[in-house]
Amino acid sequence: MKIVIVGGVAGGASAAARARRLSESAEIILVERGSDPSFANCGMPYYVGGTIESRDKLLVSPVERLRQRYQLDVRIRESVESIDRKAKQVTIKRLDTGEEYTESYDKLILAPGAAPFRPPIPGIDLPGIYTLRNLDDADRLASATREAKRAVIIGAGFIGIEMAENLVHRGLETAVVELNTQILPPWDAEMIAPLETLLLEKGVSLHLGTQASEFRQAGDHLEVVLSNGEVLPADFVVLSIGVRPENMLAVNAELNVAQRGGIQVNAHQQTNDPDIYAVGDAIEVTEVVSGTPVQIPLAGPANRQGRIAADHIFGRDSKYRGTQGTAIVGLWKHGAAMTGLSEKVCQRMGLEYEKVYLHPGSHAGYYPGAKGMSIKVLFDPKSGRLLGGQIVGTESIDKRTDVLAMAIQAGMTVEDLEEAELCYAPQYGSAKDPVNMAGFIAAGAMRGDQPVAHSTALVQGELDDALLLDVRTPQEFADGAIDGAKNIPLDELRDHLDDLPKDQPIVAYCKVGQRGYMATRILLEHGFQARNLSGGYTTYMHVTATQPS
Amino acid sequence: MKIVIVGGVAGGASAAARARRLSESAEIILVERGSDPSFANCGMPYYVGGTIESRDKLLVSPVERLRQRYQLDVRIRESVESIDRKAKQVTIKRLDTGEEYTESYDKLILAPGAAPFRPPIPGIDLPGIYTLRNLDDADRLASATREAKRAVIIGAGFIGIEMAENLVHRGLETAVVELNTQILPPWDAEMIAPLETLLLEKGVSLHLGTQASEFRQAGDHLEVVLSNGEVLPADFVVLSIGVRPENMLAVNAELNVAQRGGIQVNAHQQTNDPDIYAVGDAIEVTEVVSGTPVQIPLAGPANRQGRIAADHIFGRDSKYRGTQGTAIVGLWKHGAAMTGLSEKVCQRMGLEYEKVYLHPGSHAGYYPGAKGMSIKVLFDPKSGRLLGGQIVGTESIDKRTDVLAMAIQAGMTVEDLEEAELCYAPQYGSAKDPVNMAGFIAAGAMRGDQPVAHSTALVQGELDDALLLDVRTPQEFADGAIDGAKNIPLDELRDHLDDLPKDQPIVAYCKVGQRGYMATRILLEHGFQARNLSGGYTTYMHVTATQPS
Ligand SMILES: Cc1cc2nc3c(=O)[nH]c(=O)nc-3n(C[C@H](O)[C@H](O)[C@H](O)COP(=O)(O)OP(=O)(O)OC[C@H]3O[C@@H](n4cnc5c(N)ncnc54)[C@H](O)[C@@H]3O)c2cc1C
Ligand SMILES: Cc1cc2nc3c(=O)[nH]c(=O)nc-3n(C[C@H](O)[C@H](O)[C@H](O)COP(=O)(O)OP(=O)(O)OC[C@H]3O[C@@H](n4cnc5c(N)ncnc54)[C@H](O)[C@@H]3O)c2cc1C
Ligand SMILES: CC(C)(COP(=O)(O)OP(=O)(O)OC[C@H]1O[C@@H](n2cnc3c(N)ncnc32)[C@H](O)[C@@H]1OP(=O)(O)O)[C@@H](O)C(=O)NCCC(=O)NCCS
Ligand SMILES: CC(C)(COP(=O)(O)OP(=O)(O)OC[C@H]1O[C@@H](n2cnc3c(N)ncnc32)[C@H](O)[C@@H]1OP(=O)(O)O)[C@@H](O)C(=O)NCCC(=O)NCCS
Repeated sequence: MKIVIVGGVAGGASAAARARRLSESAEIILVERGSDPSFANCGMPYYVGGTIESRDKLLVSPVERLRQRYQLDVRIRESVESIDRKAKQVTIKRLDTGEEYTESYDKLILAPGAAPFRPPIPGIDLPGIYTLRNLDDADRLASATREAKRAVIIGAGFIGIEMAENLVHRGLETAVVELNTQILPPWDAEMIAPLETLLLEKGVSLHLGTQASEFRQAGDHLEVVLSNGEVLPADFVVLSIGVRPENMLAVNAELNVAQRGGIQVNAHQQTNDPDIYAVGDAIEVTEVVSGTPVQIPLAGPANRQGRIAADHIFGRDSKYRGTQGTAIVGLWKHGAAMTGLSEKVCQRMGLEYEKVYLHPGSHAGYYPGAKGMSIKVLFDPKSGRLLGGQIVGTESIDKRTDVLAMAIQAGMTVEDLEEAELCYAPQYGSAKDPVNMAGFIAAGAMRGDQPVAHSTALVQGELDDALLLDVRTPQEFADGAIDGAKNIPLDELRDHLDDLPKDQPIVAYCKVGQRGYMATRILLEHGFQARNLSGGYTTYMHVTATQPS
Repeated sequence: MKIVIVGGVAGGASAAARARRLSESAEIILVERGSDPSFANCGMPYYVGGTIESRDKLLVSPVERLRQRYQLDVRIRESVESIDRKAKQVTIKRLDTGEEYTESYDKLILAPGAAPFRPPIPGIDLPGIYTLRNLDDADRLASATREAKRAVIIGAGFIGIEMAENLVHRGLETAVVELNTQILPPWDAEMIAPLETLLLEKGVSLHLGTQASEFRQAGDHLEVVLSNGEVLPADFVVLSIGVRPENMLAVNAELNVAQRGGIQVNAHQQTNDPDIYAVGDAIEVTEVVSGTPVQIPLAGPANRQGRIAADHIFGRDSKYRGTQGTAIVGLWKHGAAMTGLSEKVCQRMGLEYEKVYLHPGSHAGYYPGAKGMSIKVLFDPKSGRLLGGQIVGTESIDKRTDVLAMAIQAGMTVEDLEEAELCYAPQYGSAKDPVNMAGFIAAGAMRGDQPVAHSTALVQGELDDALLLDVRTPQEFADGAIDGAKNIPLDELRDHLDDLPKDQPIVAYCKVGQRGYMATRILLEHGFQARNLSGGYTTYMHVTATQPS
């Protein structure tokens, strides 16, 4: 068996390592265009920022080990230029000499990844406009940060945001430009609002809802011209506006490629040529919750797909189950995590959904050090099936997101979350874990025990007919409340039922939703038309923070 | 509807709060024998130790709030003495006056919890022998720690171990006595061995495999006489050798009570009298993995059972699904977590199982600050169904245990763990999360790709016929290896195949199991009879640490 693998990092190196474990006799050729195979892409921003001190740390499996331990024929600085499917051979170019040669294969695995998108705008090829894909890029950026004072980051996705933190670490004045009106577009805007505030607090200047229309040289520095007319000075620019599947080999070999660019494969990672597999960022995957085809570039899926391709080559039935977009990004001590569908994706797909918000503590409130977090859960309002979850906060947001991710993988409902049995000791969680709480609230909404109203609807004027009832204390109310709200503290509500209308919908709210819920129950039980403003004043503030003022 | 609830803490107060949310008109009487309802039992050791500074912090829902917000008729320092099922009434005693009165009920909820076991040994009633169940106990212990220099803890379960840490915090010389040959008996001994080492490092003296046979006064202090003849001096003693269901009310009312003492209920928490519910530590539950009846005293289940009982009273179909024993205990920065069945329980029940060990990092190794942890996963060797998981370490052990807990709840297999899609960024995890790794290894063992051998079998002489092959570096080998092992570093193995026997089983090992696995693959592929010592030298050291020397 002779296997040629194009691309030697997450998907490619994983396929190669697994293939060797499955066969001592296979000939395995790993072709990598760059200088380093098997490096930690995901660590590069932190190497640029200095948290990861040495470049060597990023070499996950150094080339000598790949050669010795895994007996791989690793060819670095060589690029696969074309595939001859009939002859079952590829043409490879030695980048240092320009020389080309052919190599035959029994099975070919394409793991070429995705390339940073470089939009065709004026000045895009000026020196000092960087992207970040491999260690050479990281070296360039790391040395640029040493001399520079001001940087502009174009694109506020994962990489852009991680770079912002790391450039601030390096003491740079940092601006971020993002066409969307929010950072981190996979998340819903209101969830991510606190991280926008954090970036501002850290001194990053945010330019949302606008884009770079031109780069130009201005003496010793660059200028980034924005579509809103602003001009930002920069010693260098980081372009991080997304990636595009490296599909040229596949396209030229007439393999099926989706419109968005991803190479199409079956569950065994086979393309339409059964001797050619494709894995990683270069492929299209099925989103598991909705069953729709998508492009989701993530390291875990790339690793597992590589492993599955190798399995299938050696006669195993391993299957990839699709990607659900479980992702996390850190930002100083904060972070945002998600799994499954966001609200905007539900809307775009026309899915019926309900959502709830909560703001629980990372562990029991009575034990010191608990930190707040914001959770949003999306679910099918009929069956209760979990559609997605998003969490933003400082502590253990990864834990609760992983639990939600497992629940989605198992096809669970919000009622399953109610009954989830999770670890509890006061340093680690709560007797009713935030995940249970999310289940209680969502199931309560589904069952009609806790009809919910939403701040998104409120700010869009959709609740104008309702009486807004603030059930917090007079002090909390005085410190800031929603315009037009009437204040009756929860503990006095039963004494003031006569002051409330039975013929007008009432939306109760408190700080996070818990007292608002209790008020809702009291009102419903007394025959009022009541709903609880999900996530309370906290979510309301997040929502209003996202509104153009 | 008139509901009387016996016991006003985890299960009882949860039932009461939920009942109120479901009905504004119900009359809800919450009877609590102690001075405080709704307190944080689980925080008490940390209050004694001073991490939780004020007693007030432990009052989760103060009595005034229960009365005002939840409109509960809370009666503290009153004890329910008997149930008259025919008349549907209970007799209640006012503890301050001794006066008794009766109260009728439509529905009765028993949430009396479980009492610390006090074995009938000489001197057990001496002053200075404490248990820890309620805030009055905690106050007594807190003030005892202020004067004392030496304490002896009897019983190394959750509470005993937490108390050990907290007494050390208070500067006390602390000894722990435990009849089992390990601390934290719910876990398997080899997993918990590192925490025994930790306790010793912190200056705690451990007396395992022995028990207190007598307490006696010796001048101004106590003496604890152990069954092994040792005598430990103590200014006070903490008795924490387990709890017994408070079942007297139920027994006297002829409700069904299991042999182990737990009140028996159906999935709606109803006893054999449909108007009487029982919840929490007082009941017997079904262990979800094995389906067997057990006693597992945990706060999360108690809270949820209370909620379910209230639901059912108000006509809902809510059902308790059983308890799987998901638990965690912290010990300084360390901790132990588990879910599902332990190996010893599998053995006791005669279940067929396989197990694997691994020692992954809490996050990507290339990002600073990753901490090691030890994971043990038990599974059905035929179907791969997950039976249990145990994790010991410092960082994010709760996260991985919760993920395993969800997998067990969903009836998942180790192959589902292989494909679990979890959060990954370098600060939070790895592209192949420890949970995925556990899945890879376990599924590899199940499929025969990675036949495993176990250190437990090795130390019991069951692998005496095998050649032990240490594939670590010569330096690692020199620093300590298993007696009789032959050292061939992994990267030289292929050159030394001729030195190895084909007719003798070979057990390969490395530090944690990963190189041993690679060696196993190479050997199997070349026709040797090879197995990998699961968890490598690390697990071997844990196992030998548990052997009586
Ligand atoms: C800065 C950064 C941070 C990231 N952070 C995270 C994170 O925190 N979490 C997460 O899940 N994911 C993260 N990712 C994404 C993750 O790294 C990718 O999803 C993953 O590496 C994709 O694996 P792959 O094998 O498909 O592609 P890659 O790992 O990119 O490997 C593809 C390789 O193929 C080579 N190649 C391409 N074409 C050819 C050819 N014709 N001939 C020879 N070689 C070729 C390329 O040089 C490249 O090295 C990050 C990515 C970057 C760039
Ligand atoms: C020190 C300590 C630490 C713990 N740590 C943890 C942990 O970290 N994680 C975890 O999951 N669990 C922990 N637990 C266990 C957890 O607290 C219990 O599982 C839970 O409280 C059980 O709830 P319950 O309602 O059944 O009983 P309880 O909460 O004990 O409440 C029962 C109440 O009923 C009252 N009562 C009994 N009989 C009568 C009567 N006849 N009339 C009136 N009142 C009566 C009692 O006074 C008692 O207050 C811990 C327990 C203790 C003591
Ligand atoms: C590292 C790399 C070369 C793949 O090598 P690999 O050997 O497949 O992966 P790992 O080193 O993680 O080891 C996993 C294997 O070891 C086994 N293993 C790990 N720990 C083990 C243990 N303690 N006991 C037994 N087996 C163990 C696993 O079962 C798995 O083998 P399997 O796939 O045959 O089941 C490749 O993933 C890579 O280049 N990664 C870096 C690039 C990247 O992923 N970038 C994106 C993230 S930054
Ligand atoms: C606190 C206690 C009185 C129960 O009160 P409770 O109101 O049921 O519980 P919580 O305060 O946690 O609130 C949970 C309820 O509020 C709702 N809720 C919580 N946050 C909410 C939010 N942000 N929005 C809407 N609803 C919310 C939940 O849905 C749930 O209601 P439901 O059961 O009707 O679905 C009881 O559990 C207790 O005494 N606990 C302390 C003792 C104990 O548990 N000891 C062991 C652990 S130390």
